Amino acid sequence: MNTFGRKFRVSIFGESHGEAIGVVVDGVQPGISLSEEDFRADILRRKSGPKGTTPRIETDEPEILSGLYGGFTTGAPLTIIFRNRNTRSGDYKLFNDIPRPGHADYTASIKWLDFNDPRGGGHFSGRLTLPIVAAGVVAKKMLGMTVAAELTEVGGVSRSEALKNLPEEALPDGGIEEKDELSPSEIWRDVLDAAIADKDSVGGIVECRVGDVPAGLGEPFFDSVESLISHAIFAIPGVRGIEFGDGFKAARMRGSQHNDPFDHAGNGPLTIHANVHPSKNGAGGINGGITNGNPIVFRVAFKPTSSIGKAQRTFNFATGRIDTLEIPGRHDACIALRTPVIVEAMTAIVLADLTRML
Amino acid sequence: MNTFGRKFRVSIFGESHGEAIGVVVDGVQPGISLSEEDFRADILRRKSGPKGTTPRIETDEPEILSGLYGGFTTGAPLTIIFRNRNTRSGDYKLFNDIPRPGHADYTASIKWLDFNDPRGGGHFSGRLTLPIVAAGVVAKKMLGMTVAAELTEVGGVSRSEALKNLPEEALPDGGIEEKDELSPSEIWRDVLDAAIADKDSVGGIVECRVGDVPAGLGEPFFDSVESLISHAIFAIPGVRGIEFGDGFKAARMRGSQHNDPFDHAGNGPLTIHANVHPSKNGAGGINGGITNGNPIVFRVAFKPTSSIGKAQRTFNFATGRIDTLEIPGRHDACIALRTPVIVEAMTAIVLADLTRML
Amino acid sequence: MNTFGRKFRVSIFGESHGEAIGVVVDGVQPGISLSEEDFRADILRRKSGPKGTTPRIETDEPEILSGLYGGFTTGAPLTIIFRNRNTRSGDYKLFNDIPRPGHADYTASIKWLDFNDPRGGGHFSGRLTLPIVAAGVVAKKMLGMTVAAELTEVGGVSRSEALKNLPEEALPDGGIEEKDELSPSEIWRDVLDAAIADKDSVGGIVECRVGDVPAGLGEPFFDSVESLISHAIFAIPGVRGIEFGDGFKAARMRGSQHNDPFDHAGNGPLTIHANVHPSKNGAGGINGGITNGNPIVFRVAFKPTSSIGKAQRTFNFATGRIDTLEIPGRHDACIALRTPVIVEAMTAIVLADLTRML
Amino acid sequence: MNTFGRKFRVSIFGESHGEAIGVVVDGVQPGISLSEEDFRADILRRKSGPKGTTPRIETDEPEILSGLYGGFTTGAPLTIIFRNRNTRSGDYKLFNDIPRPGHADYTASIKWLDFNDPRGGGHFSGRLTLPIVAAGVVAKKMLGMTVAAELTEVGGVSRSEALKNLPEEALPDGGIEEKDELSPSEIWRDVLDAAIADKDSVGGIVECRVGDVPAGLGEPFFDSVESLISHAIFAIPGVRGIEFGDGFKAARMRGSQHNDPFDHAGNGPLTIHANVHPSKNGAGGINGGITNGNPIVFRVAFKPTSSIGKAQRTFNFATGRIDTLEIPGRHDACIALRTPVIVEAMTAIVLADLTRML
Repeated sequence: MNTFGRKFRVSIFGESHGEAIGVVVDGVQPGISLSEEDFRADILRRKSGPKGTTPRIETDEPEILSGLYGGFTTGAPLTIIFRNRNTRSGDYKLFNDIPRPGHADYTASIKWLDFNDPRGGGHFSGRLTLPIVAAGVVAKKMLGMTVAAELTEVGGVSRSEALKNLPEEALPDGGIEEKDELSPSEIWRDVLDAAIADKDSVGGIVECRVGDVPAGLGEPFFDSVESLISHAIFAIPGVRGIEFGDGFKAARMRGSQHNDPFDHAGNGPLTIHANVHPSKNGAGGINGGITNGNPIVFRVAFKPTSSIGKAQRTFNFATGRIDTLEIPGRHDACIALRTPVIVEAMTAIVLADLTRML
Repeated sequence: MNTFGRKFRVSIFGESHGEAIGVVVDGVQPGISLSEEDFRADILRRKSGPKGTTPRIETDEPEILSGLYGGFTTGAPLTIIFRNRNTRSGDYKLFNDIPRPGHADYTASIKWLDFNDPRGGGHFSGRLTLPIVAAGVVAKKMLGMTVAAELTEVGGVSRSEALKNLPEEALPDGGIEEKDELSPSEIWRDVLDAAIADKDSVGGIVECRVGDVPAGLGEPFFDSVESLISHAIFAIPGVRGIEFGDGFKAARMRGSQHNDPFDHAGNGPLTIHANVHPSKNGAGGINGGITNGNPIVFRVAFKPTSSIGKAQRTFNFATGRIDTLEIPGRHDACIALRTPVIVEAMTAIVLADLTRML
Repeated sequence: MNTFGRKFRVSIFGESHGEAIGVVVDGVQPGISLSEEDFRADILRRKSGPKGTTPRIETDEPEILSGLYGGFTTGAPLTIIFRNRNTRSGDYKLFNDIPRPGHADYTASIKWLDFNDPRGGGHFSGRLTLPIVAAGVVAKKMLGMTVAAELTEVGGVSRSEALKNLPEEALPDGGIEEKDELSPSEIWRDVLDAAIADKDSVGGIVECRVGDVPAGLGEPFFDSVESLISHAIFAIPGVRGIEFGDGFKAARMRGSQHNDPFDHAGNGPLTIHANVHPSKNGAGGINGGITNGNPIVFRVAFKPTSSIGKAQRTFNFATGRIDTLEIPGRHDACIALRTPVIVEAMTAIVLADLTRML
Repeated sequence: MNTFGRKFRVSIFGESHGEAIGVVVDGVQPGISLSEEDFRADILRRKSGPKGTTPRIETDEPEILSGLYGGFTTGAPLTIIFRNRNTRSGDYKLFNDIPRPGHADYTASIKWLDFNDPRGGGHFSGRLTLPIVAAGVVAKKMLGMTVAAELTEVGGVSRSEALKNLPEEALPDGGIEEKDELSPSEIWRDVLDAAIADKDSVGGIVECRVGDVPAGLGEPFFDSVESLISHAIFAIPGVRGIEFGDGFKAARMRGSQHNDPFDHAGNGPLTIHANVHPSKNGAGGINGGITNGNPIVFRVAFKPTSSIGKAQRTFNFATGRIDTLEIPGRHDACIALRTPVIVEAMTAIVLADLTRML
């Protein structure tokens, strides 16, 4: 239920305002060099702080409890925990009675018979994506592939549009040429400012590309690469859709436009196992559920953050009446800003499992 | 690998031109009345025949080998096979050497070291969706829910547009008022005719709605309802994307537009477990991975059929040269026409498993 | 539920008097040469016929429905069925009302709410071990190990005792020197004759040895080799116990007697990965759940056949009274006679899965 | 790999001399009252201290990290860790080069390519049974059954024999009548003293009985109750055999002796679902893999402790020569003394999973 994978298995646990959150990763290859330091970069990418993210800042220090010896993974389960420190549970107590629209308060209460921990969303909190990022770091170290995700759209505005509209004073010293130095919060600052001013939130789209993918991963039908990746991606809170390669656009294309003709890639001899690849990559690197050697490419739609300060209609189960809720506390105006590294982690976890299952 | 589900488990087997294809369904509730007759309607919906589908017509007669006694399911594994009869393997032999663009010929050869059965796509054939439809019939009989999928778009033309453009002689006797009598092949006849004339193919979009869903199905994170449904849906050949509720549009909405406020549904008393539902259903019936009592709603993008008569560039591994391929044989100009019942089957399978796991 | 294995997965189905019984084997290595002929020897070893086995004789002809192409396994699921032909269902109908002591009639009715197929034990029949033997044949062909099981005791009489007591006329032409020509039915003929004369049955003990085992298979704790083998072995009807290496005797030994000291095996250089083995093999080839390179050795206790002609007390649910039952029909006086090949099959299935999971 | 169960899932992690050991229990029923106090009794039963057990004494204080809120389980994964404190790693370092006979030092090195943590057996340590006991406490609280295991034999001496041979001064004040006050270490003191004097160790046999078992748990074949229990029991370090009901003796019985006739149990009406039970219980409470309502009864053989002070032959991989090893450090002369509570825990875990899967 809280575990993913068959031979590289990731199990998450914890609550937003409980003692600790964490992850057990079983099936780690022995002999991977690993230290707390290795987690820093990806944890930082998920961290809040910049415009559009919540001001709740956690130290997010990983504590490795097992599976490591002399600086290398042993092959035994790797356990990593993160203590919760910066918790303000008072903010959340009322959501027992007044479920927040768009949140799991209501469904958690039904599923777990009102025994669910309501503080900060409890086990349903987006904070549980932190141990997933940690597992992703381990997965990435096991893979000989590159996994890179980035925001391509926020609040309906594409990256290039947003850049075009940036006033000069918002550009780096080198001007638009140096645009890669800009963070998403800087690129989409106008969209975010507008949402914050309205006590509202915006969504976004993340694109993920995996390079150096060996051909032959995955299975026909139920364990297709798309099946496994989508399974993992929809485990991220706030995802509303996923598409591979040409995606929904493929439904509007002719076969002759969407099919990938085969090309000679490189100069080597032509055998079925080498130097031939489908070109164009409308299939996103996967045919019949199995990788074809091309980059895996997919896009993920994130909804706008559910928690908003703006007044919303909801029920008050204590009074039995319709009520108006203005959610207090600290929220992300755009959770999508923090998700590319989570998308990468999930993808790496799926691919590490597929590689171990070969 | 070829199995889906934890307590309601569906395992498919077979090849397009082999002896038989079939399915073992384990975890069937004992005491469900069942006969070969029960499969007829759904099998017919998947069948080829109408414009835009392949002229290969199979009898598709289910043969129940086990799990049934005195007209009722016993609780033991239910096995259903379909003999392959109308096979013309000669058509396919060359795809060993010349992989068809968009097909699994190439990846299957790599994965299975050239031992894969190439006839008609072998185990990768869309024909394997027939046993899935059969398992879906069993799942539907176990569920107290309605599962209904239909085509909403073909070749980029929506149902309403297509209907509007139909000339009078293509309408039923009663005119546009009787449009529900029209089959998808009739509604989108112009789109299909154009593709067929060009020896090309088109894609489509299927929408699925599940009604009478109990609240509380699913798990947070890895076994979210979206995770399980998308896992199963991407097992259908030709799927390029899936979105729930507001879907990709949610990424362009404000939180105040996308969130579902809570409403009093019906007249009963207000407890958290009854008579309150999120309205509007932008979440597609699922919050935090768990059903909220609303209909589950999602859309699936199908690519255009890969097999086309139009010339395509590919490799000839026998000659070691780039070649041009005009695929002979019998194809669907639009596979999406045959997929709504498959989408329903997969959805019912997921929900039967979730119900059994409660 | 009716499936075993993670990457080499065996799923059985069928009922004793139904249409067919069979097995789907998923995760078969592609490129294994296979034909119906390959199954003959092992199926014959399981067959009834000799003294002490039931006179119901089935043709037991395997029919391969999928997963084979051009004489080689393809990598796709391999499906094998056996049609039931020689069924006399009339013999069994009354067990609906009068459960046979030692059988699953009673528990099957409770579990499956009286919808279970009662004919010949239905899905609970020992006949389901036939598809297991078939899956074992495939597993053996994938393994580079020898798997050999034999009866060491019947009705409390060891093989050597039984041989010693055989009168001269029961010996082969060459006398006791040629004792390997004798079948178990011949070796234990006196024990079997005595049981048959009393309309009763006897049990037996099977020993299994696996040679050429690579070191390093298995996992600590839950997926120890003993855990997996015992899991599979207790799936054989009639098993009451299993012990590895010194087994129950180990509980009566000192550590200095039971421990296996390490020996130099062969002449090669001494590295931890080669040419050193624990000697004596009190551990049965497994330390800490993981193979150590020695033969795996274990013994299995089979109970006496439950079906006996002798009168037994049971309940008649139709009359609500205690009743006396003399089971009519055709039974094995000693099922253990037919089980060594089943023990081998289960062992090979476990090892094939462990090898695939490496 | 380090996980057991389908819906009630237990995952263990940690090393003997690492930071902490622990367990994640997923699928816990929400609403079970639970506190650290609940673990005390069972943890104490596993603890070392009495004669025949190691003098390494750990505090074994459970720390609950997740899954608990307001004193009740929430339904989310329950995580319990135990910090390791009393570690003397120096004792173990040499086992890298000189594998201890009977231990996993050798197989762990092979499996994990010498990256395994060798301190105290690392992840292969019997210390990992502590989190299993903790998971067992949770399982017991979910079950409406009684699970009770006890030692019936140590070093080949049965409990009654051992009691008979106890000199008067070793008996409680009330004499032999009060024998239930005696601990196993007191009952078998002579056997233990003799082994300790010889720097050797002894094995033992544990019997487990489960009462108030509902009929209908388990599955035919692969998920038989015996399959699942034996799978879990062989995960306990040091187990060499398991037998159910009449066990190995059944192999020496006639069918008429071993079969359980049916009896009217109680006074209620006779329907197949009530008031009828197989008597005598030679089957140990299970027919056809499914519980029949009788107590589940099985026995487990534990080998003598592998670590002994007595000289043993082994290899020194550093010198490449045969060596003599006298294991220093702190050991149990009889691990079986500490195992009944572990056997109970494993049994409760299996039954909790079976109950959740109903």
